[in-house]
This record gives sequence, structure tokens and C-alpha cells, in this order.
Amino acid sequence: MSGPIICFGELLLRLSAPGRELLMQSPRLDIAVGGAEANVAAGLAALDHPTAIVSVVPDNALGRGAVAAMRAAGVDTSRVATGPGRMGLYFLSPGAGVRAADIVYDRAGSAFVQANAFDWPTLLEGAARLHLSGITPALGPASAAHAIAAARAARADGVPVSFDGNYRARLWESWDSDPRATLTELVAQADLFFGNHRDVALLTGRDAGKGREAAEAAFAAFPNLTAIASTSRTVIDADHHRLAARLDMRESAHEADEIAVTGIVDRIGGGDAFAAGILHGLHADLSPQATVEAGLALAALKHSLPGDFSRFARADLAAFQSGARDVRR
Amino acid sequence: MSGPIICFGELLLRLSAPGRELLMQSPRLDIAVGGAEANVAAGLAALDHPTAIVSVVPDNALGRGAVAAMRAAGVDTSRVATGPGRMGLYFLSPGAGVRAADIVYDRAGSAFVQANAFDWPTLLEGAARLHLSGITPALGPASAAHAIAAARAARADGVPVSFDGNYRARLWESWDSDPRATLTELVAQADLFFGNHRDVALLTGRDAGKGREAAEAAFAAFPNLTAIASTSRTVIDADHHRLAARLDMRESAHEADEIAVTGIVDRIGGGDAFAAGILHGLHADLSPQATVEAGLALAALKHSLPGDFSRFARADLAAFQSGARDVRR
Amino acid sequence: MSGPIICFGELLLRLSAPGRELLMQSPRLDIAVGGAEANVAAGLAALDHPTAIVSVVPDNALGRGAVAAMRAAGVDTSRVATGPGRMGLYFLSPGAGVRAADIVYDRAGSAFVQANAFDWPTLLEGAARLHLSGITPALGPASAAHAIAAARAARADGVPVSFDGNYRARLWESWDSDPRATLTELVAQADLFFGNHRDVALLTGRDAGKGREAAEAAFAAFPNLTAIASTSRTVIDADHHRLAARLDMRESAHEADEIAVTGIVDRIGGGDAFAAGILHGLHADLSPQATVEAGLALAALKHSLPGDFSRFARADLAAFQSGARDVRR
Amino acid sequence: MSGPIICFGELLLRLSAPGRELLMQSPRLDIAVGGAEANVAAGLAALDHPTAIVSVVPDNALGRGAVAAMRAAGVDTSRVATGPGRMGLYFLSPGAGVRAADIVYDRAGSAFVQANAFDWPTLLEGAARLHLSGITPALGPASAAHAIAAARAARADGVPVSFDGNYRARLWESWDSDPRATLTELVAQADLFFGNHRDVALLTGRDAGKGREAAEAAFAAFPNLTAIASTSRTVIDADHHRLAARLDMRESAHEADEIAVTGIVDRIGGGDAFAAGILHGLHADLSPQATVEAGLALAALKHSLPGDFSRFARADLAAFQSGARDVRR
Amino acid sequence: MSGPIICFGELLLRLSAPGRELLMQSPRLDIAVGGAEANVAAGLAALDHPTAIVSVVPDNALGRGAVAAMRAAGVDTSRVATGPGRMGLYFLSPGAGVRAADIVYDRAGSAFVQANAFDWPTLLEGAARLHLSGITPALGPASAAHAIAAARAARADGVPVSFDGNYRARLWESWDSDPRATLTELVAQADLFFGNHRDVALLTGRDAGKGREAAEAAFAAFPNLTAIASTSRTVIDADHHRLAARLDMRESAHEADEIAVTGIVDRIGGGDAFAAGILHGLHADLSPQATVEAGLALAALKHSLPGDFSRFARADLAAFQSGARDVRR
Amino acid sequence: MSGPIICFGELLLRLSAPGRELLMQSPRLDIAVGGAEANVAAGLAALDHPTAIVSVVPDNALGRGAVAAMRAAGVDTSRVATGPGRMGLYFLSPGAGVRAADIVYDRAGSAFVQANAFDWPTLLEGAARLHLSGITPALGPASAAHAIAAARAARADGVPVSFDGNYRARLWESWDSDPRATLTELVAQADLFFGNHRDVALLTGRDAGKGREAAEAAFAAFPNLTAIASTSRTVIDADHHRLAARLDMRESAHEADEIAVTGIVDRIGGGDAFAAGILHGLHADLSPQATVEAGLALAALKHSLPGDFSRFARADLAAFQSGARDVRR
Repeated sequence: MSGPIICFGELLLRLSAPGRELLMQSPRLDIAVGGAEANVAAGLAALDHPTAIVSVVPDNALGRGAVAAMRAAGVDTSRVATGPGRMGLYFLSPGAGVRAADIVYDRAGSAFVQANAFDWPTLLEGAARLHLSGITPALGPASAAHAIAAARAARADGVPVSFDGNYRARLWESWDSDPRATLTELVAQADLFFGNHRDVALLTGRDAGKGREAAEAAFAAFPNLTAIASTSRTVIDADHHRLAARLDMRESAHEADEIAVTGIVDRIGGGDAFAAGILHGLHADLSPQATVEAGLALAALKHSLPGDFSRFARADLAAFQSGARDVRR
Repeated sequence: MSGPIICFGELLLRLSAPGRELLMQSPRLDIAVGGAEANVAAGLAALDHPTAIVSVVPDNALGRGAVAAMRAAGVDTSRVATGPGRMGLYFLSPGAGVRAADIVYDRAGSAFVQANAFDWPTLLEGAARLHLSGITPALGPASAAHAIAAARAARADGVPVSFDGNYRARLWESWDSDPRATLTELVAQADLFFGNHRDVALLTGRDAGKGREAAEAAFAAFPNLTAIASTSRTVIDADHHRLAARLDMRESAHEADEIAVTGIVDRIGGGDAFAAGILHGLHADLSPQATVEAGLALAALKHSLPGDFSRFARADLAAFQSGARDVRR
Repeated sequence: MSGPIICFGELLLRLSAPGRELLMQSPRLDIAVGGAEANVAAGLAALDHPTAIVSVVPDNALGRGAVAAMRAAGVDTSRVATGPGRMGLYFLSPGAGVRAADIVYDRAGSAFVQANAFDWPTLLEGAARLHLSGITPALGPASAAHAIAAARAARADGVPVSFDGNYRARLWESWDSDPRATLTELVAQADLFFGNHRDVALLTGRDAGKGREAAEAAFAAFPNLTAIASTSRTVIDADHHRLAARLDMRESAHEADEIAVTGIVDRIGGGDAFAAGILHGLHADLSPQATVEAGLALAALKHSLPGDFSRFARADLAAFQSGARDVRR
Repeated sequence: MSGPIICFGELLLRLSAPGRELLMQSPRLDIAVGGAEANVAAGLAALDHPTAIVSVVPDNALGRGAVAAMRAAGVDTSRVATGPGRMGLYFLSPGAGVRAADIVYDRAGSAFVQANAFDWPTLLEGAARLHLSGITPALGPASAAHAIAAARAARADGVPVSFDGNYRARLWESWDSDPRATLTELVAQADLFFGNHRDVALLTGRDAGKGREAAEAAFAAFPNLTAIASTSRTVIDADHHRLAARLDMRESAHEADEIAVTGIVDRIGGGDAFAAGILHGLHADLSPQATVEAGLALAALKHSLPGDFSRFARADLAAFQSGARDVRR
Repeated sequence: MSGPIICFGELLLRLSAPGRELLMQSPRLDIAVGGAEANVAAGLAALDHPTAIVSVVPDNALGRGAVAAMRAAGVDTSRVATGPGRMGLYFLSPGAGVRAADIVYDRAGSAFVQANAFDWPTLLEGAARLHLSGITPALGPASAAHAIAAARAARADGVPVSFDGNYRARLWESWDSDPRATLTELVAQADLFFGNHRDVALLTGRDAGKGREAAEAAFAAFPNLTAIASTSRTVIDADHHRLAARLDMRESAHEADEIAVTGIVDRIGGGDAFAAGILHGLHADLSPQATVEAGLALAALKHSLPGDFSRFARADLAAFQSGARDVRR
Repeated sequence: MSGPIICFGELLLRLSAPGRELLMQSPRLDIAVGGAEANVAAGLAALDHPTAIVSVVPDNALGRGAVAAMRAAGVDTSRVATGPGRMGLYFLSPGAGVRAADIVYDRAGSAFVQANAFDWPTLLEGAARLHLSGITPALGPASAAHAIAAARAARADGVPVSFDGNYRARLWESWDSDPRATLTELVAQADLFFGNHRDVALLTGRDAGKGREAAEAAFAAFPNLTAIASTSRTVIDADHHRLAARLDMRESAHEADEIAVTGIVDRIGGGDAFAAGILHGLHADLSPQATVEAGLALAALKHSLPGDFSRFARADLAAFQSGARDVRR
């Protein structure tokens, strides 16, 4: 299974105020490329896993620039198509101290949302995995259908599927008052689900408790699932969070000790870095305990870096996990 | 008639590559606020004319930032509403030397285009003038109807109307194969039209020659017109243009000698600066010859400044016209 | 009382070292517009209160730029005059970690200080309030006289007066060894005084205790006063302060719990944001308790933003007060 | 022959003073990735030709960053190895007006120069072409041997070889007083040689005249050659050059009219863009005349862009060749 | 006479808009250190002449930073004192294309102007030369007296004096309607005068013609003069000037051919670079013809560099004079 | 003993990623000048001690720029020679939050390492002290020999010698498996040694305990030593360290209380600032207790400033030591 991990989702350009300013406070924006699934792909590529992104961008300087950034990050972009529509954007006022970050989404009418069809058997050929998130189906009925088609095609071909809940109420509310059916269908194809007890409650329609209890409810509801991973975050202020993680297997539960994530530079993409770290553990054959620790470590490290992507290599992860905090000469 | 000159049109954010780079060449964008009618308003305000903008923006950091930039430029923004939809954007790779500038428009779905209604009698109360351009009606049927309603309301109230052709084939082609009826209706309300022989040919449906001939054809077709202004541009390269201008009155023709516009910093908004200069001449009671010379001078000066706006005061215009090119201490 | 809150004071340009550098460490400065009273005006405008600034600037690019920044912030600048003299400046090396910020003032000879006369009855016509601070009278005898004239004219016209002590020993020492008479005259006109026990001791010439005791001494000495507001600040390091506030009414005392202001981006203007928050409470008819909490919240938020101004809307304030610290999507 | 065009050469980081400053005038450097052969690869990739770079970089942030930039430019980097040694650098003070640009090379001891061996049969498998330049053999005896081995292996496998003279006297003088034998061996393997009459004189040991005469002398000396391309440059100042080009085939000569390259942004990489344009013509089956015009056009366009790379797509080239110099909307 | 060339004058900070913007167009300023005499000192130091500056600055971050910049430029700052008063500033909107640069001076009340006394015998001990300009005496009566005292002390000690007219009408008009007496006294002490026919007319009180005629009038009026140098500038636009120069000795006249100074980056300090080039010629024992050519060449080169200082070494000057305009590798 | 403190060591350019980015994350680098001994010289000069650096740089823009930066910092650079070889560089990804900083050294082949000979009697004439660090001898056998020659010459001339251990295992391992002989020889010449118990163990070949015990072992082994200074650092994360210090005299021990160094901006050069602070104490005749407190205070302050240098004057040190953490107006 040496083929790439395939991530399917929208590429976004993130346009953020520089420094610790608000948007439009000074006449400048910093650009980064993001999108939940792209972030996972980039994070995995930095850890030396072959990855590819399946997406659609407009055939203009923005679309080409986003694809170039993915290539720079080491992600195979040969499965990215161009199509009519605009580039999905989001505008960010980064948080600072006691002030929360603020996002203005501007993704309506994107080329990704307007995509007609994907040839999944071809796109997934030889893949080591398909990774999806709950953002794609939330974008609209066509995107939801594409996500389901992808997950079914993968399962049919024996390609493992991972699904990150990433529940965004505002996206769903704009077109579908009950996302449960769609999400259930997607999780049903997955062996690995990223979600906490709130996601499980949404999927199962009932409160099944927290932690292990929620995991067991999910295992019961979704027979294909073999692993459930989640983080738990306490926000002190924009610069200081506390982050813990757990990974539930059918037969065992694994927790990573809470980390004080101080001096936060950029919190966006922290959850995607966690997903990348967990997938790294699975595909590098780490133990479940080592896997959840790698996931949490990568998530914590991501907070120290501007941009949506985790750019950490295995050596960086190892250094962090061995306690390196002072200058590495 | 000491009320403001009212400009009606969309506010756009311009996001441009820094330096002489291409978009996405480095991860940064410079922001400016633009839009043809906003540029005219800002140019007039810098020349100490009371101006106001009528527009609609989204109620988010981008819309508020655009409005703040208009206020900073001295334009009354009390007639700007907020509404559903996004902020209209355009992305610019500035030209340099032998390379032409390149624009990616991203204005579909804007709050301005989605605007429902404007209360023109109130908005135009006490106005010294209404200024429109051909971009607004090209945005779609609702915007076209708003533009016509505005022009008619102004004429009904005795508010003079100026209309800048600004013909953009790509916008019209997307929804209306024959813009002639709409444009004719708008020019019919105007006392001042900005357009050259190509615009006149489009409006009258026939080639009526160039220069004075075209102007006379337009005067014949549009009895309310009292003045027609236009520039003529020769592009040597992205840094060097030659620019001339003419102003036709019913009884007389006035030409401004061609200027070598060298060392161009930013060519966008040059035509809007010309319109501002002409309107300045009219509202400051300059002679037609002084008016066309002011228009051409302001257009030339604009090319020396980053951003869409002319920011030149009367003293700057006078210094330029008196030949100042070396350091003013 | 729908007229603007009128703030009277000098507009300053703040020129600060970028990043966390010292002045002149690299050849670049960041510009912001400030001045205690301008900061209050901008903070109030961001909260949707009509505000206007009364000031004098030089008729050059710096003066015009400062006025444009005020307009951008939503403040009515129609009462700003131009006059002989220079633009007041201050140069800032921002603090960082264990290093305190450092300011080089350069405001001698400013157009504001050289101002001859203000036509207060006209300037205050229809005003909802006049806001002053102790910096203006400290600038010299003419400025002190202007401040007193303004306060008296306001009281004579029934316009409420607020006065922020802002005691700056270095300014007073340069020309007046005993500011008590001047300050007493100003506080005597005010219904609202911003000051703590040290200010009260200065005004009354005796130590009247702290907190409520000081407030009662001030109420006794100044019969027009109805409210006294103050903050109490503990500085851990340049990035971490603790901030509490109190608002004393004649009949009641209101305290806002201390906030840990961590990850400080820019501490300048924090006190002015507090004043803006208190004035917001008064003019939005909040209860005294809600008012002091709004003042403290706005003061805390200001520390998260570069520049002298609070730029927070009511929604931002509400989000902060409801505990939002993580990304607002 | 749909395989990639393989470019073999050193990847360099270019560290240049920002704006029009001298190195170290302000404490900042702009980074670009360059190297003659890398520039050709990037230029070709932008024109949609499959390209790959064969090189060696250190296994550190600089080496990885250089490789990422090549990937972003669309070049296949799977043939780039890591090895001991440093990253080759060069420092640039860009020219401006009457001041010439100035380069400080810092490439001694690089990982590329220290490379031991290349497995050419594998590296060249399926290649559409091997492209080399005279810089690689000038770096030292090992690099010269690698270049010769590459060229011989290509010819042995039927892979066409192109060689760009790029004669750098200072590099040769440091270790080999007579580069003629090495260069002759390399040109002997080539079907396409980039060089002018001075290169031909160096190779043949005699002055064979200019233009067509020089080309015929080269064709006589090197029976494998089928095409010789060269530019001719007149430098007016750092911002204004004049550039012409010729392409000699065995049976015909083709000249492209001199272009005034005005408003130069960055002259570095202009020759490499010419090579990319010529190779584009050959591999896109353009006529020799169209090929030399494409080469000259791409060379001219490159001067308008910061960085070593040509980033122009076929549409950009076509727009330039059709005369587009004003804003493309 | 191996001691330093002593330059006496005010150190200024120049705060300029970045890029080609107007002041306050974006919230950033670039800092450079300038002042006519400081520029001459820096230009000479870059050419390896020992130089020292005599000046007074405030004892704050700005004064210290200005002195550090002089030290960085290689100028001995041990004769710079600190004193009460502010740092002299000037604000610059750089010119671009058809738009002239614009300066806002802000030097009133500077520490230099407030300086009490200079101990000239000590300050001039061992000096190779004293260089002054007409700006210093124009700053006010005390500065005029200091300049005269310096020139007299130098002449008394056998230290040659050079004086650059640098006539600034606006400075003189503010306090002295007839600067002729002061300037005459200064030129009377000089062996070298920088000035053209207008300066000579001002000094002699009559129009003595141009070029050689003016020089001979000056030689007649000032018996100590042995050389008079001047440039002649034609301004095409802000980016393109034409510059010629002449050097008149008592017995011979020397002209340097006009240079097209294109692609101008920064015109400020061009005249000071000319003075540095002439002084370089004198102190390096160049012939008068070589001297005037060096002066003109250095003046032309200065226009290519941001900031007030010429930073060119002798090798740079030689390269320019030998015609180098393309990349120096 | 009013001559300069002479620091002998390599000047390095530090090229660091801007903001909190990784190297090559965006195409820009910030430049600072560093090198352990240069940092000490700059730190002492900022405290008004005459200092000079002895070093060798290449004769190019980088070498000249490094020397200019030293001059700007107030260090006498007349003892810096130029020579063949390159400029020593290091590339820095600054740390942030939980992520450690990372350094890529690139100093092989530098002009300093290739230096042939130093004329120590001349270079040390009139010196108040010679300061060395363990980095210089670690660079290679020639540098080790130069360091020893310098230390011996100083002792022979009665110039006190200080030596900062600065043990860098990676440098030594590349050429000398047993640095003990070299280091012992150097410490033997010193009156002041900067090192902790690990350094003492390395020098004496045995574990002599910590703190006072280690100091006494060193005093016993090196009879010329009169003082030993060291810091003790606890790293919480990249932004938060705890720092304590001790100074052992032969007869007494002095400790400075641990400081919480929060909000760290730049940790590089912290140890060199400590050395500068201790040397300041010695040369300003502070008591040992005041000396160690000054050393620790300067070390802590350095963490708040970008770049390798401490730029703090005595007044800044005093303000910090008196507890100033809030804005100094």
C-alpha cells in the first residue's frame, strides 16, 4: 500500500491581516493556502508520506498559485482540475491576547462547489487512503453527493476512508436543516473517524456520554469504524490554549497528556495537524499510544507556525517530543 | 448648488501583488479601494469638492474597511448601505516594462449587485450632480435598472447627470447581448458624457467618424448633452504611455496637448482621474479649455501614484501644470 | 441629545519602531494617529456614537493625513482647523517581555499649541458632550486657557463635560509648577471625572484615601460631579498586565473584576479606551455596573491591537464580554 | 518522446537587497531560487512542458526550500539528491538606472560541487532531452566530469542534448586555464548549442566571424549540431536594454527583430528564459522563425519580473507577441 | 595633511513614504539620515577619505540613531555633541514619473539650531579641510555666527575651507532679508566654492554672466578662491534628469559632458554627492578634468540609490566611469 | 587603563526568517550581525565602554556591511582586516511558543578561519582587556593557535584576559576529539572565566560538583583566575525562560536572583549580553554583587530585542533594575 493518501476537499486562499492587526487596519494582506483537507495533505507530506489532493480550482492566477503552494508543500497536485467559478477565500483577523481571531468566509460560488463530476475509480487508483472532512458535504448538495460518491468508491475498492467531522453549523444551516443522514453515510464508510462526543451525539441522535462512552456508541453505530480520534481544547486566551487528545480503538483507549500550548502564533489548522499526526501514526505503523501522542504533538507544534499548514518533518516531531524547547544548533 | 456630487457605483477592493511581482509570486497582497465611480468621488474630494458615494457593501470587516477608506479620502459615506452578499474584489498583477498588467475580477455575487432598491429622491436631495458610469448597468439587469432609475430621478429633480461610458464587453456579454438600449437611455439623461468615437458608434449604431465628428453625432442624438469629454491613449509599454484629451461643447472644441506619461507607477484609475478633473473644471467654473487641461493633467498625475485614487489637491494640480517636475521643497 | 460627543485635544502622529525593535534599529517606522482625546473619539465612533474632534493641525501632508485617519475612524473632522506650526509627534519603542516601552515626545511648537482662538459656542452647538483631558491644559498657558474656555462654554450651554485627569508631570513642570488651580477649574465644570486617588489628592491638596474614600472626597469638592471612573493597573511585564476598574456614582460604587490582560500587543491608548467604554455606557444608557464593565472590557481589548485607537464595535465588545477567546468563524 | 526535459545543474539561492538598495543597506534580503539550468527548467514548466531537475542540495532548511520552490514552479524534483556540503548562494545588489547590478558569489563548497556520482542511465530514462550549461563544468573537475558523463550517456541513449555556453571566465580561471577541451567534448554531444561568435571562437580556437559565419564554423566543427541560438544585447542602462536573437539551422538562418526592453525589473535569468523559449519552440514543434521569436519574447518578458525564473504561460507569451502592453482585464 | 575632512552641519532624519506613495498614504515611513554636510561626509568616507562631522543632536533614540548611521557610513562622530532641543526632521513624498517629489521640513527648534558654542580650534585640530554649506548660516543668527566662526578659525589655522552655496530662499526669508553679507564672509574664507552663476550673482550683487564669466567674477571678488564647481541640471521628469558639471580653476576651465541620469531612484543628495566627488578629486590629487568628471559621475550614481548618502567606493566609481551598466559578476 | 576592551572573534551574518516563520517559508530574510565576541563588544559599547573588535572579513559587500554594523554599534573596527574567504553565515528559524528555534550554520571557509596571522603586540597596545570565547579555538587548528597566541600576548603585556567557555561540541568534533589541552591553555591566561560546572568538569577532567564547588575547583586549577561567572537557564518554552546567575570571586560568592524572562523576542546573544554585563561591572568598578546583578539584568533585557546585540545603555539597565516594566514617557 505504497500509493498516496488522497485528500478530497476545497483549496482556499486565506487572506489575513499582518502582524496582530485587524483586517483592513493597514493596506496589506498575507496569503496562505488552506482548507481542512489540504492542510491534512500538507501536514502528511511534510512527514514524508506520499499524498495527493483531489480538488477543483479556477484557471487563473489564484487557482494556479494555490496549486503551486500545494506542490511546494510536497503534495501531488496532478488530480486537481480547473473549472468555472471563483477561488474560495477566507479573510482572517488573527487573534491576539484577550482578543479572539475573526474570520470572514468568502467561498460562495467557488469552482470547487460548482464541480460537476469526479472520476473516483481513476482518482483513487492505488491510493493508500481517502481522507475527507465534514466541510465538503456542508458546502451544498453537489459537494455532499461528491463526498458520498468518493467514500463509497473508496470502500468498494478497498481503500480505507478517514473522515474528520469538522462540523460547521453555519454552512449546513444555509441549505440543509438535517445533515445527519449525509454525515452518517460518510462515517459508515470510514475506518477512522475524527470527532468528539458532540459529533457522536449528532451522528447517533442521542447523548452517549463523553470520552470512551461516546467512542463505544460510535463503534456500535458504525461497524466499519476501527478508530476514533479527538482533541479536547481549553482556551485561556488567543495566545494560550491547553490541548489533550485521545484515540479510541475498538479494544483499547489511549490518551495523550494535556499540553500547555503557549505563545500561540497561529491556531488555524491545529485540528488538521492533529489529523495528519494520527494518520502519520497509522501509516508509519506506530502503536496507538504513540499515534495519539504524535497527533497531539503535531497539533501543538502547528500553533507555533504562521499559515494553515503543519510544515514539520519527523525529526522536528521527535525533537519536540523529546522536550527540545531551546535553540537547536 | 453647494450640495455634493453624488457618485453611484460599486465599491471594490483591489488586491494587488506587491512590487512588480505577479499575483501569488510572494505571499502578500496590497489592498486599495476602487471602483470607477468611487475613484471619481475620491478624486473630486481631493480637489475640495463635496462628494458622496451611493453604494451597498456587506456588513463585515471588508465592507467597513472600504467605507473607511472612502471616508479617509474625504467622501461622504452616509449614503452607503449594507446588505447581503459579498465584497466585490479584483486581483491585480501590476504591469512592468514590456509586461502588461493583468486583472482577475472576482465581483460576482456582491452586495452591490444584490441590492434591492434605492430611494433616489432622498439620496439625491440637494445634490450638485449625479455621476454614473457604464460599469454599473453592465453588472446585471437589477443594476442596470438602478442606474436608469437614478439618472431619471436626477433629471426629474434638476440634478445634472454625467455618464462615463466605461464600456466593458466582458461584463455585458455575460447577460445582455445588446446593451445599446440601456446605454442610450442613460446618456439621454446626461448633460456630460465621457466617451470617444467608439462609444458614440456603439450608442448611435453607426460609425460617425472621430473627434469632432463623433461629438457632433452624439450632440445630434442626445439633445440634453452639453459636453463630451474623452482621452486618447497610446501605450508604449507598461511604464510609458502618451495621453491626450478633448472636450467638445456644442459650440466649440477644446484639445489638451498630448503628455508623455513616463515612469508609470499605477495606470488603474487614470480614466477616472480624467473624469474627476473634468468635473472639477465644470464645478469650479473653469473655461472649457482649462477644464480639459485640468482633466488631462489629473489623469497624467494619477499614473504616478499607487492605488486607484487620484489624491491630488488643487495646489498639486497647479504645480504640475506649471511644470514642476523636480523636488518641491 | 443626538448631537456628537465633542473631543477637544491635539492630534499626534505616533511613529513607532516596527516589530519589537528599538527606534532606529532598522530604517523604518510605523505610523499611527493618536492623542488622548482623539483616541477617545475614535473609540466611541467605533461603538457607533456620533463623535467629532476639535483640533488644529498644520496644512501639510502630515496634518491632512492625521485628519484623514480620524475620518476613516468615523470621527467628524469638520471642526478641525489648520494653522501655523508643526505636527505634534511622538516616537515609540514598543515594549516587549521584560523591557518597558519608551517614548520620545516631539510635540513642541505644534499647530495645536500655537492655536489662537476657538469659537466655542459654534463648535459646541448641539453637542451631546464635551470631553477633555489633562494633557491639553498641560501643553502651555494658551492651551490651558482654551481648555477652560471650552469647559465653561459647555457648562454654560448645558453640554455635559467629562474630564480625564491624564496627569503628565513632565509637561506641567516645563511651565507651571502648580497645575492645581487650572485642573480644579476644569473638574469643576465636569459631571464625569476620570481619575484615581492620586488625581483626587492632587486636586484637593490632601490624601483622602483610596477607592470610595477618594471618590467621596472628590464628590464633596466638586458639586457638579456625578460620576468618577478609574482603572487600577498591575504591570507584570510589558506583555502582561492586570487591570481592574471602578465607577463611583454619588450614591453607589461599582467595580469590575480584575482582568488578566495577557499577550499585550500595544498598551498605548488603553486608558483612552477605558474612557470611551465608560462614555459609551453613559450615552447608551447602560447601568453603572454595565458601564464600568464595558469600560474595563474595552480597555482590555485595546491592548490586543496595534495603534492608539480602540477599533471595536459593540458586537466585538459583546463577544469579549461573553467570553469569546477562540476563533470566531 | 513525452518524457521530461531533464536539466542538470546546481540550485542556488539568490539573496538580494530589497527595492533598489545595495546589499546590507537595510537589514533585509529577498530570496529567490536560481541557477542557470534551474531557471530553464522553471521557464519550460511554466510553458507546460514536463521538466525535471537533476541536482544535489544539503539536507537542511535551505536545500529543502530550494527544492520546494522548484516544485512550486512545476518542475519534477524527484531526481534531486541530498548530500554533504552547503547550499550554493549568491548575493545581489540589483542595478538601477545608471548603476549596474553587482553580484557576490558564495557557492564554494556546495553540496552540488561535492557530489560523488550520478546514475545517468536511470536519471535519463525516458527523457525528452538533457539540457546543460557551461556553468556546471566550470565549477571544478568533478562537476566537469559529471557534465561530460551526462552528455555522453544521453547521446548513447538517443536523448537529445542541448548546451548553453554560459562562459564564466572567473569560474574557469580558478582551476583550469584551458576549458576548451571540456567544452568541446560537451558541444560535440549536443544537437542544440546556445552561444554567439565569442563562444564559437573559444570552441574552435579561431575567430570565425559573427552571426551566420560563426554558426557555419560551429556546424563544421560539431557534426551533431543541428541548431545554434544566441541573443545580442545592447545595454543602455540598468533599466533599458535592447535585445535581438538569431537561430541558425544547418540550412537556414532566422532572426528576431530587436526589442526595446524598457522598464527592466530584473535582468537576471534573461538568457535562461531565452533558452527556455527556444526549447519550447523545438518541443512544441514551432517553425524555426517562430521558435526564435518565442525565445526572444520570453527573454524580454523575463526582464519584467523579479526573481530568476520566467513564470510565463503560453497565453502570456501569445499576449506579449500580439502586442498587449496595456492592462489585460 | 592626513587628518580628516571636517564637515559642519545639522544631522537630519529623513522620513519618507515607502515605494512611490505619498506621505501618509500607507502607515509606514522609511528612515534615512541626511543633511547636506552629513551627506558630503558620508560620500567622502565611502571613497576612503577620513572624514568627521561636527554637529549637535538631542540625547535620545533619534539623535543616537543618527550618529550611529554616520558611524556606519564611516564618518568619525567623536565631534558630535548632545544638547537640548529636538531632532531635525524632514518628510519626503518621493517623486515618480511626472510627479515631483515633495518635502515637508520640520527642523525648527532643533538641538543643532540651539547649540551655544563650538570650540573650533580644538575641533579643527589636524583637519585636512573644513566643509560648510549655505544651509547652516540660513538656519538663524546663531548658526550663521557659528559658520562664520568656523570658517575664520579654519583659515586662521591654515585649514582649507570649502563652501557649498546651497541657497535656500525659504530659510533665509524667515529671519534675514539680506543674506549677502553673511554669505560673502563665508566665501571669503574658502578656497573652493560650489555654486553657479545664480550664486555668484547673489554674492556679487550683479549678473556677471554664466559659466566661465561667472567664475571669473567670483575669482575677482574672492581672492582666496582657487576653484569653483557647479552642476547644471535639466529635469525631464522625476525619473529622468540630464546633468552636466564644470570646474573652474583660476587659470583653466574644465567641463564634464552631460550625462543622461535615467531610472532615478532617489534624487535627494545628488548635489552633495557632486561635492564629495569634487573633494575626492582634490584630496586624491586628481587633475581638474578628472576631478570634475569624478564629481559628475558620483552625482549621477547617487541618483540610483535610496537615501541621501552616496555609498560608492572608488571601485564603483571607476566601474561606472568605464561604462559598466550591466550586471557585474 | 582607559584603552579599549578588545574582543577577538569571527563576525557572522545572521539571516533569519521574518516574523515567527520557518526559513524559506516566505521569500525574505532579516539580517543581523553577530558572533559571540562581536556581541560582547557591541553590548559593552552600548554601555559606553570603549571596545574594539579584532577580526577578518572578506572584502565584499557582506564583509563591509558587517563592519559597518559594528561601527554603528559603537565598536572600533580599525583592527578588522580583510582577507580571502567568504563571510561566515548562520541561518535562523526563530523559535515560537512550544517550538524551539533552529540554526543552520554556514561558516565553513570563512575569511576569519583562513586568516594567516595577527600582530598581537600591536593589536593589543593600550588595551584595557582581551576578551575571547571558546568558539574561536573550536573553528580549527589555525584559529585555536591564534586564540592561544592572543591570550599569551595579552598576559605577557599585562592585559587582563577574559574567556567565555561557549563550548560547542559540534564544532570541536569535526577536527579535534580532545579540546581540553587547548581550552586549558586559554583559561590559564585568564583572570575571568565564563563557565559553569560542566565547563569546569571539561577543563579539569573530573566532576567537581556544582556552583561554589565547581568554582573552587577552577580556582585551584587555574591560579591566574580571579573571577568565574555563569548563568543557569530553565527553558519553559521558546517564549519563557527562567534565568539566574552567579559570580564567584576567590574569597566570596555572589548570586543574582532568578528572573522570569517572559515574552522572549530573541534569545540569541543572551549569554553574550551576560558577559557584557559582567565586564561592565568589572570595568565600571561595581561591587561583585552589583556586577552579577548587572550581568543577569542585561542578559534578561537582551531577550526582549531582535538581533544578537544588546543595545542597552546604562540608563536602560538602571530602569530595568529599578523595576520599570510599563511605558517610560
